[in-house]
Amino acid sequence: MNKSYQSLLEFSRDLYALRSAVGVLSWDQETMMPAKGGEGRARSMASLSRVMHQRFSEPRLLEALEACASGEGLSEEERVVVREMRRDRDKAVKVPEALAAEIAETVSLSQRVWAEARPKNDTAAFNPWLAKVVSLRRREAECLGYAETPYDALLDNYEPGARTSYLRKLLNDLKAELVPLLGKLMDAQGKAASPLDGKSFPVADQRLFNMKILKAMGFDLEAGRLDESAHPFTEGLHPEDVRLTTRYSETDLMSALFSTLHEGGHGIYEQGFQPRWFGTPMAEAVSLGVHESQSRLWENQVGRSRDFWSCYYPSLQGMFPKQLGEVDLGAFLKAINRVQPSLIRVEADEVTYNLHIVLRFELETALFGGELEPAGLEAAWNEGMRRNLGVAPEKPSMGYMQDVHWSCGLLGYFPTYTLGNLRAAQLFDAAQRAMPSLKSDIRSGSFGALKAWLNAEVHQSGRCYDGDTLMEKVTGSKTSAAPFLGYLKEKYGALYGIGL
Amino acid sequence: MNKSYQSLLEFSRDLYALRSAVGVLSWDQETMMPAKGGEGRARSMASLSRVMHQRFSEPRLLEALEACASGEGLSEEERVVVREMRRDRDKAVKVPEALAAEIAETVSLSQRVWAEARPKNDTAAFNPWLAKVVSLRRREAECLGYAETPYDALLDNYEPGARTSYLRKLLNDLKAELVPLLGKLMDAQGKAASPLDGKSFPVADQRLFNMKILKAMGFDLEAGRLDESAHPFTEGLHPEDVRLTTRYSETDLMSALFSTLHEGGHGIYEQGFQPRWFGTPMAEAVSLGVHESQSRLWENQVGRSRDFWSCYYPSLQGMFPKQLGEVDLGAFLKAINRVQPSLIRVEADEVTYNLHIVLRFELETALFGGELEPAGLEAAWNEGMRRNLGVAPEKPSMGYMQDVHWSCGLLGYFPTYTLGNLRAAQLFDAAQRAMPSLKSDIRSGSFGALKAWLNAEVHQSGRCYDGDTLMEKVTGSKTSAAPFLGYLKEKYGALYGIGL
Repeated sequence: MNKSYQSLLEFSRDLYALRSAVGVLSWDQETMMPAKGGEGRARSMASLSRVMHQRFSEPRLLEALEACASGEGLSEEERVVVREMRRDRDKAVKVPEALAAEIAETVSLSQRVWAEARPKNDTAAFNPWLAKVVSLRRREAECLGYAETPYDALLDNYEPGARTSYLRKLLNDLKAELVPLLGKLMDAQGKAASPLDGKSFPVADQRLFNMKILKAMGFDLEAGRLDESAHPFTEGLHPEDVRLTTRYSETDLMSALFSTLHEGGHGIYEQGFQPRWFGTPMAEAVSLGVHESQSRLWENQVGRSRDFWSCYYPSLQGMFPKQLGEVDLGAFLKAINRVQPSLIRVEADEVTYNLHIVLRFELETALFGGELEPAGLEAAWNEGMRRNLGVAPEKPSMGYMQDVHWSCGLLGYFPTYTLGNLRAAQLFDAAQRAMPSLKSDIRSGSFGALKAWLNAEVHQSGRCYDGDTLMEKVTGSKTSAAPFLGYLKEKYGALYGIGL
Repeated sequence: MNKSYQSLLEFSRDLYALRSAVGVLSWDQETMMPAKGGEGRARSMASLSRVMHQRFSEPRLLEALEACASGEGLSEEERVVVREMRRDRDKAVKVPEALAAEIAETVSLSQRVWAEARPKNDTAAFNPWLAKVVSLRRREAECLGYAETPYDALLDNYEPGARTSYLRKLLNDLKAELVPLLGKLMDAQGKAASPLDGKSFPVADQRLFNMKILKAMGFDLEAGRLDESAHPFTEGLHPEDVRLTTRYSETDLMSALFSTLHEGGHGIYEQGFQPRWFGTPMAEAVSLGVHESQSRLWENQVGRSRDFWSCYYPSLQGMFPKQLGEVDLGAFLKAINRVQPSLIRVEADEVTYNLHIVLRFELETALFGGELEPAGLEAAWNEGMRRNLGVAPEKPSMGYMQDVHWSCGLLGYFPTYTLGNLRAAQLFDAAQRAMPSLKSDIRSGSFGALKAWLNAEVHQSGRCYDGDTLMEKVTGSKTSAAPFLGYLKEKYGALYGIGL
């Protein structure tokens, strides 16, 4: 084998191993770390981030990359490894170590300020930190470079190649369809109370049921875990060590279940890479927007469907006979699919969810572009919520301070949630075309074929294609809102027996 | 502040932060990591070990150390930081990176071979790996250098400054006292069965009682955790994040309790450093032999005493009324202090424990010196056990393959257990002299003064003194077997009403 490529491979595996160490620290911080451990942990994170930056700056990496640049004697996958390592390296060295360190330190402090300020609605404490973080990201964007506008540089961190102009059009078109659909659905469903409300579901039983679902999905529990944390997340330390979390609420049965299905979808992606590429970009996810398509597909197309619950609802009733014995499948499906404009993004239904994202995109591009200052965010937020969803919060903790993202400068991140929603529907369509028995498989609780299809079509190509190219290859067209809108109309049409 | 010293301090904190990351990975491996995670974890560990080695080899570290070598303008503690960092750096750079990496890889593989070979008593699989590990340690010792004999170099890794000749005499003298004492005690206690045998203690209740004891000791659970693992251990990630483990057995009530007291003692040491020195050698333990004195003092001098159980036995009986209601305090104390030559070190009582260590020391020095080959270990072990303890195993899994240490090349480690036992008794003596109310405090379940005394006398000086100097400073004499032997004779004399 080409000696330079070999040394590149070693470099990649070493970097992967270090990133994996960062992953352990970060997972532990959210799940296991005692209250006072934060300061020491921040130091360890900072030290490891310096190590990674130094690695990327080593001249021998650049030498190996240049020696492999022609691709001569390399397979197609090996060329992907070279191309993607070059991409990672160039992005890393474009940001000077001092700026990278300043960002790392500032976002860590800013996140703590946010966590303290949010419950107190203390905008005066939070806004200056938000301004500082935004200004650091602007400097970062200038270092990274961009195609059309500085915000493109941030998008590229999460969705390689995505452009602001493209997302703006996609989101506006989507909003134009969703707002009237929302109106029709609100009329159709009326004001009946949910038969799940006001009931209590012991957490110990919920845990058993969540584990049962996770196993049925095909998540390998010898190569991963399910724990609990305040905010559910997935941390893929290694394809053979993937950590998921969920959160249980005694009064909200579905909260943990949908989190488990969601994170399980992320987890199956992280476990789905080809072993011979472990430690290289050929065994890494394409982008956040593709990652989110995997979680949403399991959560929504599978986990909120009549087919899925035809199989699992009887055993859920069996576990909670007092609470669910009198609730039939139809009433249950209406309850878990209820559409309701609300204040909190992570609790939103499938129809209103993307309207939350539209607002965040509008506001964060304005913030980043300097047209909006943090001091103006509360008013702009409330006005946008009223316009898009018809509701507005009384307090910033339920408004622009609800999510962690802005406090740690994750600008450009929110739009990937919508990309994920659209791609989930689009991929599920393609899966149905490829596997005519898919729906009946789901009705019988059998997910092996779906998982194998996702492995083959999405997971095993690693970072070979960007998000849109992958979608085109697998579904025949680039990312599009049409399958998602079609899915919503078909589903809600059937649920309420109306034409949409 | 002196600029070179300032840069040294930053270096030290960075190294500490990286070591702390290694600690998280290692704790996670034993407590949380799923079955298939081992290979990826080994890679992360290896990558971090290379990072540490590279850090120690950086010329700017040596420059800063030399600029501070005169100690000019530095406080006494700052000079300790310089001295101990110099020690760590010199030891690290003496071992070439390639040898260090070969050792890291080999011990990781060898430990896995041992774990598989032990239950099968597969000496043929294990012995070649043991030979390989021993030979690598010989090469390491030659790189490190030594005062009198190569084994000194290994001892120095765990007990700085300790010599083989010194330990040989200490252990032989101890054996000469222990063997006849053991004989007398065996006669005195007779063959009565333990009133704890054959009973079952639900693990959920045990967990509550263990947490109660750990809190009472003063272990700060906001700066640490107690989990479960196959082999109990303590991992001090940071003085504000100390991880302990214990292990529960439904049929053995005392196993978890003594492990919790033991690891709690280690944990109180790790939490006991002065905040302003965090991240420097002034906030690190002296040696394994001092560390073990802290765990043993809480486990034995406190946790196996009549005073302790005068306070806690009623609540233990209250938790397990069916099992312990008919067992009075005297019978309980005899049961938990029963002397019995046995095959497994970690289950040994206070009298026979050190005889296990004597044998390991004799065998590992012979192995390391080349007078004994792995193939001869089984016979030598069995003969030594018969000579020292009067019992011998039928299978190597209960004999020379019982402990993990040799599989991962921890030669020079075992003697620190005996140093810990001796120092625990010696320190407890000194504590009693300093605090006349100590025993009555323990009888009332109040450990604050003992913890504060250990903090001030032992923990807060960090690596200021070596083990013997610290003992002399705190107790008035270097490490000695006399207080330990006095403690055993007084305790067992009282327990059986005999003169010893």
